[in-house]
Amino acid sequence: MRNLDEDNITRAVIGMHAQAGNVRLRELMTSLVQHLHAFARETALTEEEWFQGIRFLTEVGHITTGTRQEFILLSDTLGLSMLVTALNHKKPEGCTESTVFGPFHVEDSPRVELGGDVANGAQGEPCFVCGTVAGLDGRPVPHAELQVWQADEAGYYDVQYGEDVPHRARATLNADAEGNFHFKTIRAEAYPIPHDGPVGRMLEALGRHPWRPAHLHFMITAPGYERLITHVFRNGDRYLDSDAVFGVRSSLIADWVEHPRGAAPDGTHSEVPFYTLAFRFVLNPDGA
Amino acid sequence: MRNLDEDNITRAVIGMHAQAGNVRLRELMTSLVQHLHAFARETALTEEEWFQGIRFLTEVGHITTGTRQEFILLSDTLGLSMLVTALNHKKPEGCTESTVFGPFHVEDSPRVELGGDVANGAQGEPCFVCGTVAGLDGRPVPHAELQVWQADEAGYYDVQYGEDVPHRARATLNADAEGNFHFKTIRAEAYPIPHDGPVGRMLEALGRHPWRPAHLHFMITAPGYERLITHVFRNGDRYLDSDAVFGVRSSLIADWVEHPRGAAPDGTHSEVPFYTLAFRFVLNPDGA
Repeated sequence: MRNLDEDNITRAVIGMHAQAGNVRLRELMTSLVQHLHAFARETALTEEEWFQGIRFLTEVGHITTGTRQEFILLSDTLGLSMLVTALNHKKPEGCTESTVFGPFHVEDSPRVELGGDVANGAQGEPCFVCGTVAGLDGRPVPHAELQVWQADEAGYYDVQYGEDVPHRARATLNADAEGNFHFKTIRAEAYPIPHDGPVGRMLEALGRHPWRPAHLHFMITAPGYERLITHVFRNGDRYLDSDAVFGVRSSLIADWVEHPRGAAPDGTHSEVPFYTLAFRFVLNPDGA
Repeated sequence: MRNLDEDNITRAVIGMHAQAGNVRLRELMTSLVQHLHAFARETALTEEEWFQGIRFLTEVGHITTGTRQEFILLSDTLGLSMLVTALNHKKPEGCTESTVFGPFHVEDSPRVELGGDVANGAQGEPCFVCGTVAGLDGRPVPHAELQVWQADEAGYYDVQYGEDVPHRARATLNADAEGNFHFKTIRAEAYPIPHDGPVGRMLEALGRHPWRPAHLHFMITAPGYERLITHVFRNGDRYLDSDAVFGVRSSLIADWVEHPRGAAPDGTHSEVPFYTLAFRFVLNPDGA
């Protein structure tokens, strides 16, 4: 400890954690310190670069609030969030794939009935969504709970408008006894992740755009099944091959079908063109 | 990009940076992403652990202010700061070694004359410091500028008392034409790094104490020489073998010699016991 150098310091730091009671924490910190130090050695990190890193993390911390999570954006844009999702949701072939959670979920979204209006005043082109929730064996999952959330036509989630705005374009509903669900909402649009902060500046410096292809978020839970957190992506979106957060999976891309004004799926007459989307979710049985 | 998995996502993220104009930034991000992803894969990081990490970094960001830099504390306690120092200050044998900068330096410390009072009201046992600044060839470095800073007897730096407290126990002075300097201050004491925040909780979870052995900070600059940022550590301190930030080097340990009350080095009569410390700094010539 009195004669550490660039080679033996890593062992010394790890050795300091030998007394940690929590074995898993020790394991995590050992790997973290090894990789952190290897990064500095491998790049011959300068003191100015180190300090730029300190300043960057400080800015990420200072812009983070209860409704804006810049550290999650950072994790998302470096592919870490999608990697952790992939590592934790290896499923049998045939199950709906998981993708990133994202920073815009809220716990207490409004409950709507089947067929209800999820938009709740959010602006966008009308879209009627229907689908089923089934198990890997093909049998319907009755009464599965679905949480759905999305951006509006301006590319913003309700929470980005501030605390005075009520929950919009998000809801909780249950499928029926046959696993079927349907609701009315607005068309999902491509949008840039919040890029007026340090993560946006990082993307710019890296020659990357901040856009995500249009998608609708789903979180689906049912007793006896692994919770599914995923998106459905809109086919044809120009950003499907360059999602800023690496969340696209081919199996999650679906068609938003355009219809002229006229008879809508909910039995009303739509004065404007509208869209329909259908998707079948396959849940992974617990223990599979 | 539409079929990424836990194995090929790292290549995809790195590939996204191929257009970055700044080659060095690309190099840094390639290494960073590789190590970040390797950490997650190697530990099979769970989603809950990932989220604990997000929360931890958020707390580190929120406690960081203009006078408290918790990200630097984090870097210090993980040995990264000392590693970066070691990587950037490889010097010829015989030069005074560098150690961590720490988060408590300020730019505008009070200027004192040779022999002046650095304590400026900070509480502690009197200590008279003297020394010389020389080059690697043994010749004195005339008029070298020294910045010195330290904690008081309670273990706090002035900046930790808030913005209303004037600068204390820190100063800027110049050596004389023969490279000699002396000043009066207080005895350096061991102290815990700020541990009432997330980094303190991390140390506790890891079974580590937050203490640093007693030391006096120096930053020494002179035309034609590499800037020296270092500490002098107090011999006999109980934390010399377990410095919370891994900064101790054998060559930087010196004796704080205790003297009974009586004639002090500044020609006055000290009514209380006092200490003396002498240290010779050897600067690295530019380009060595």
